[in-house]
Amino acid sequence: MITVMGISKDGSIVEVKFDDLNLENYKLIWIDCYNPNDEEIYKLSKKIGIEVSELYIGLDEQEIPRVEENEDYYLIIYKAPLFEEDITTTSLGIFIKDNILLTIHTNKIKAIGRLHKLILTRKPKVIFERGIGFLLYNILNEITRSFSRILISLEEELEELEDKVLVGYDREVMEDILSLRKTLVYFNKSLIANRDVLVILKRKYLPITTKEDRENFEDLYYDTLQLIDMSVTYREVLTSMMDITLSLENIKMNQIMKILTMVTTIFAVPMWITGIYGMNFSYLPLANNPDGFWIILSLMIIIIIIFVYIFKRSGWI
Amino acid sequence: MITVMGISKDGSIVEVKFDDLNLENYKLIWIDCYNPNDEEIYKLSKKIGIEVSELYIGLDEQEIPRVEENEDYYLIIYKAPLFEEDITTTSLGIFIKDNILLTIHTNKIKAIGRLHKLILTRKPKVIFERGIGFLLYNILNEITRSFSRILISLEEELEELEDKVLVGYDREVMEDILSLRKTLVYFNKSLIANRDVLVILKRKYLPITTKEDRENFEDLYYDTLQLIDMSVTYREVLTSMMDITLSLENIKMNQIMKILTMVTTIFAVPMWITGIYGMNFSYLPLANNPDGFWIILSLMIIIIIIFVYIFKRSGWI
Amino acid sequence: MITVMGISKDGSIVEVKFDDLNLENYKLIWIDCYNPNDEEIYKLSKKIGIEVSELYIGLDEQEIPRVEENEDYYLIIYKAPLFEEDITTTSLGIFIKDNILLTIHTNKIKAIGRLHKLILTRKPKVIFERGIGFLLYNILNEITRSFSRILISLEEELEELEDKVLVGYDREVMEDILSLRKTLVYFNKSLIANRDVLVILKRKYLPITTKEDRENFEDLYYDTLQLIDMSVTYREVLTSMMDITLSLENIKMNQIMKILTMVTTIFAVPMWITGIYGMNFSYLPLANNPDGFWIILSLMIIIIIIFVYIFKRSGWI
Amino acid sequence: MITVMGISKDGSIVEVKFDDLNLENYKLIWIDCYNPNDEEIYKLSKKIGIEVSELYIGLDEQEIPRVEENEDYYLIIYKAPLFEEDITTTSLGIFIKDNILLTIHTNKIKAIGRLHKLILTRKPKVIFERGIGFLLYNILNEITRSFSRILISLEEELEELEDKVLVGYDREVMEDILSLRKTLVYFNKSLIANRDVLVILKRKYLPITTKEDRENFEDLYYDTLQLIDMSVTYREVLTSMMDITLSLENIKMNQIMKILTMVTTIFAVPMWITGIYGMNFSYLPLANNPDGFWIILSLMIIIIIIFVYIFKRSGWI
Amino acid sequence: MITVMGISKDGSIVEVKFDDLNLENYKLIWIDCYNPNDEEIYKLSKKIGIEVSELYIGLDEQEIPRVEENEDYYLIIYKAPLFEEDITTTSLGIFIKDNILLTIHTNKIKAIGRLHKLILTRKPKVIFERGIGFLLYNILNEITRSFSRILISLEEELEELEDKVLVGYDREVMEDILSLRKTLVYFNKSLIANRDVLVILKRKYLPITTKEDRENFEDLYYDTLQLIDMSVTYREVLTSMMDITLSLENIKMNQIMKILTMVTTIFAVPMWITGIYGMNFSYLPLANNPDGFWIILSLMIIIIIIFVYIFKRSGWI
Repeated sequence: MITVMGISKDGSIVEVKFDDLNLENYKLIWIDCYNPNDEEIYKLSKKIGIEVSELYIGLDEQEIPRVEENEDYYLIIYKAPLFEEDITTTSLGIFIKDNILLTIHTNKIKAIGRLHKLILTRKPKVIFERGIGFLLYNILNEITRSFSRILISLEEELEELEDKVLVGYDREVMEDILSLRKTLVYFNKSLIANRDVLVILKRKYLPITTKEDRENFEDLYYDTLQLIDMSVTYREVLTSMMDITLSLENIKMNQIMKILTMVTTIFAVPMWITGIYGMNFSYLPLANNPDGFWIILSLMIIIIIIFVYIFKRSGWI
Repeated sequence: MITVMGISKDGSIVEVKFDDLNLENYKLIWIDCYNPNDEEIYKLSKKIGIEVSELYIGLDEQEIPRVEENEDYYLIIYKAPLFEEDITTTSLGIFIKDNILLTIHTNKIKAIGRLHKLILTRKPKVIFERGIGFLLYNILNEITRSFSRILISLEEELEELEDKVLVGYDREVMEDILSLRKTLVYFNKSLIANRDVLVILKRKYLPITTKEDRENFEDLYYDTLQLIDMSVTYREVLTSMMDITLSLENIKMNQIMKILTMVTTIFAVPMWITGIYGMNFSYLPLANNPDGFWIILSLMIIIIIIFVYIFKRSGWI
Repeated sequence: MITVMGISKDGSIVEVKFDDLNLENYKLIWIDCYNPNDEEIYKLSKKIGIEVSELYIGLDEQEIPRVEENEDYYLIIYKAPLFEEDITTTSLGIFIKDNILLTIHTNKIKAIGRLHKLILTRKPKVIFERGIGFLLYNILNEITRSFSRILISLEEELEELEDKVLVGYDREVMEDILSLRKTLVYFNKSLIANRDVLVILKRKYLPITTKEDRENFEDLYYDTLQLIDMSVTYREVLTSMMDITLSLENIKMNQIMKILTMVTTIFAVPMWITGIYGMNFSYLPLANNPDGFWIILSLMIIIIIIFVYIFKRSGWI
Repeated sequence: MITVMGISKDGSIVEVKFDDLNLENYKLIWIDCYNPNDEEIYKLSKKIGIEVSELYIGLDEQEIPRVEENEDYYLIIYKAPLFEEDITTTSLGIFIKDNILLTIHTNKIKAIGRLHKLILTRKPKVIFERGIGFLLYNILNEITRSFSRILISLEEELEELEDKVLVGYDREVMEDILSLRKTLVYFNKSLIANRDVLVILKRKYLPITTKEDRENFEDLYYDTLQLIDMSVTYREVLTSMMDITLSLENIKMNQIMKILTMVTTIFAVPMWITGIYGMNFSYLPLANNPDGFWIILSLMIIIIIIFVYIFKRSGWI
Repeated sequence: MITVMGISKDGSIVEVKFDDLNLENYKLIWIDCYNPNDEEIYKLSKKIGIEVSELYIGLDEQEIPRVEENEDYYLIIYKAPLFEEDITTTSLGIFIKDNILLTIHTNKIKAIGRLHKLILTRKPKVIFERGIGFLLYNILNEITRSFSRILISLEEELEELEDKVLVGYDREVMEDILSLRKTLVYFNKSLIANRDVLVILKRKYLPITTKEDRENFEDLYYDTLQLIDMSVTYREVLTSMMDITLSLENIKMNQIMKILTMVTTIFAVPMWITGIYGMNFSYLPLANNPDGFWIILSLMIIIIIIFVYIFKRSGWI
């Protein structure tokens, strides 16, 4: 699917169909290409003059974030959160050539959708008017805020998990922890790679960025550092939590085993005594004594009390 | 909440209301702004001439420590301990512009309160008289001492935990360990980030610091290194402790299981024998023998003794 | 086994027997030497003028990837996937001298076979016509794609394992995990070493590579980075999974032990009571009461109900 | 406590009281100040002209090792082993000013005591005659040898532990392991910090050291590297040992559980059979058969033998 | 024990007694000194003019590998495998002075013995004729091949262990793993240190090495890299294996516990029923019914079947 937005030379912001697009009528054009078919790729390549094989690089979900300067265009690969069963990350390709900024991606990227909506509803001319570097900044900024939003919600989830873990937990909690760790592994790697892209954008004097843009990228760079820091911290807290659960499980198991052992031990001798008196011998001591029953019963109860007392003194109860 | 203190041009130290503040009457002003509402932010921005968006950076609890040199002011982000359910860390924004030092923070920072009190009770003119760099040093120093105080108390807690763990422990000890590890994770990260701020303050010839200030920052730098070292060491000791608890749990479990197994094994054969002699056959060997009962009882006791002996020789008892 | 392919001076691509090979008739020759015997090595050495001891370096399965520039030839060691019981990696030696490219390896390398087949079936003159640097690129590219294919299939395997682990798992799953981890350990090391080779090939102005070749190596370099990233991520996910399985095992064990303990505890007292009433005393209270049986049975059932209730309230059921 | 030793201008080595000390009478003076009270600190400060606050830095047990060059004196912080409940480390402050070397420390440092004794008993003038750099070297050398001695004894302890662990172990062994790990954590950190001090002393041309001194520091540097290496190796061996103990515990537990399960399983059916024949029915099959008892007993024994055989074949016994 | 070999000025290779050694008669002398007593050290020192204290450095088993250039001699410390209870490593001191190469070591080093034998049996003049640098290379090469041989045998041992672990394992396997890990810890550290020695030997233009020697050291450097890589890989595989064994143990334990729990649960109710009918009440329902026994027996069997069915459906069997 290809979506095109641009600011025309007279300053009006328009959304056009890709097939109707005439590049020369616009000061700045943003083409977003989501999960294109081969035909769309071909048309894109022809219209903007970037080779098909290059465009496919932007579609690779696992591509490493970087800034590539080519003869007549720039290729920026950036990582964005991906919402599937678990939250992982995906790659986004950004091509910049003359007055065109092309975003190309195989998976849905929420940040792109949000920016689209923002442009259409609030008509912020300003995004387009400050040039292509500012548009780029806005896209990367939305993505960074995506990461930020998710990480903040993860922190809350983490605190909930912490409570759950200390109270007692089950398979579901485990699945949550596994899913959380996976997300943090992907986020950490992706944010570190994004940071390297931002280092280049904030330092290098690329012709597409103004001094103001570079300052914006610097802010984004610090935001990304902060997010990396958060992801590392959360991972360590999660690891601590996992270690604790293991110990808690063991404590619980010990308690269960203590109960089992106590019950078995306390009743072992009394049961044996009832067994002894259940034997069918013609002569059993005390058997004909009218108090026999009470004597033996008392004996058993005394044994039980002694064992209970021993366990109590050993701190088992 | 905004608190303002300053040293007037005649050298007297005064606490004024923010609304009454006239910047030109003071040689040096310290404005502390804790959890401000939007209106307070707006007033601040207007009075001291720093943009609202910039002020909000100082309020972000997760902001990364750094020194930013802007055209007409400096922004220093620094981490301070935060006392909530667990002890974690929060960010503090420090803006320095001309004769104004502004501290701005979302969470309560104890070090700030302590310095305020110090100024008001002991009237140490000296803090204000030695210039803005020295005031900055005093604030960072109080924060560093906050960290130091907590880490020292953690060491004691750690030693208590160690004793508890070796004696036997429960869920509560686990919660303490989890909370301690969390604190150490946050402290370690924050102190490392603070160190990077101090490296800049001690090395760079910022116009706001004198040679003496830089020497002070150098001392603070070494204090912070020391605290980082402590936090790392404590974490490793804590990790050792966790590993040991796991092994101790296993040893305990083994002992419990040994008791259970011994009791079950020792009584298995005697119980079976009582079962055999409890069967209602018209003919049972020895049943009518007057010594039958004593023969079988002796047999059972001998079996028990043999099993006890076997377990003793195997080192179970 | 030695396989020879070349492009003759008139531009035709031919496969010749090694013994019939006349080096001067070809613009470019690719000799592939797989698991050669000593005689083959000797013949090779004589024909292309590289010492036998040098050729044996290329055959060492554990050789470290690197680029060696010698007086009249280059030696490139590169790692490729090796399919045995587990998937590990093996070394491939590539000698480049004048118009000869020699690949030499002890183990079967699928990528080599694939390239051979490609050349023979689709006759892509282009591989030979663009020079020796391009042929080298094609070989390294095929190997990198081998790694890539396997890693992508591992990802799927990983997701399957994840499901299996959460449902319940056995020895077979464990063997899969162990095998997966081993593969990832080998891949990670090998890809990092390959990356270092590519860094040299993309940067250094070796006379055997054109500018275009170096651009190709740069692409390969980024692909390898991406694969390294994947291998690291998968390893961390695998580690998480292992930790989780341990916890899940413990949860399961706890549940099993709870059942055992409950059963033992619930029946302990009723069994004792039946034992008591099975004793052969001439006088047993209630024994001759016609309702005695029902009274005692009710007592036992009440005790069972009470215990079940206690366990229910404690959250065991 | 303050101890003073010096070499007078006529070359005789004397031990004097601090109060009687006249700095000008000596070529070289070594003042050792152990756990001083405030008055002693004050007197020290006055006599040798170093500020009280500076002296207190030397007394901080956690101070980070470093070399500080001040206007008219040097401060060297160095870590030494500390013998308390566990063996950890403490900081030693060394001030060098003109012909005075002052060692100041809160905790007892064995190496200082040993050097004192050496000087007094063997009268090695040589230590004082070769200048202040050589005296410094002797102090640091004694401390390094302290570390070395302890690490060598730890190695032996480690080997003993290894044997104990494989034979079977208990809480006491665990406490030893925990204590050993703690010591290694502290030693590793301290030795790395000491190394950094030695790097400066061996490289920098401080006026207090001669070329020969620097060569001595270089030897000390290599000794420290060796000790760091030892501490790292021992830690890894200890970690391996911990992992192994966990597995051994599990193996033991498995064996205990196997016994329990076998005993329970083997007797389950025979016990049920005795139960069945213990039931008070007026009609029981075989009950009146004179061989009934022997038939049922044989049945039970056969069942037991079958179960034992099954367990044997399954490798449980 | 001192062994001396040399090549005399007329080119013949001779083995002489140390006491008869006249240094001037030889072009090149190799003195090997294994576990010398103090007298031997003294004689050595006197004959070759290196201080006793220096020679003792070469005897320290834990000395850190390095190259020391002194005024008139070189000292090279190198690590070699040491065969004791476990395979660890030891240090070898190599002194090079004029035409003398002295190897000095406390422990037996197999590589030295092998080289000795090689020289004596195959008379490879060549080792001595190519100069002292080549002799040094031969010694280091033999040592490196020692490491290589052991690591290759470890790989096989590792694969055997892997099979054993998956089949089931015991204390002996654990001891093997512990010993293997220890060896790998020592080898890894030693090889890394040796590599640093080789970096110096291959790069620095020491007067004792020719260009050809430096190329040989370069080969050795790559061999050592390869061995380091192997040791790291094996350690990771070993770690994976340890993790897996832990999980396998847990799986086994779960299965054992399941059996125990099933047996206990299945027989709980039937045993209770036999207990009930074993009670000596004058009135028991069904007791006088001639089919009473069969009714109750059928009931018990039905209960057992139901429980077995439940466990089967839950996947326990």
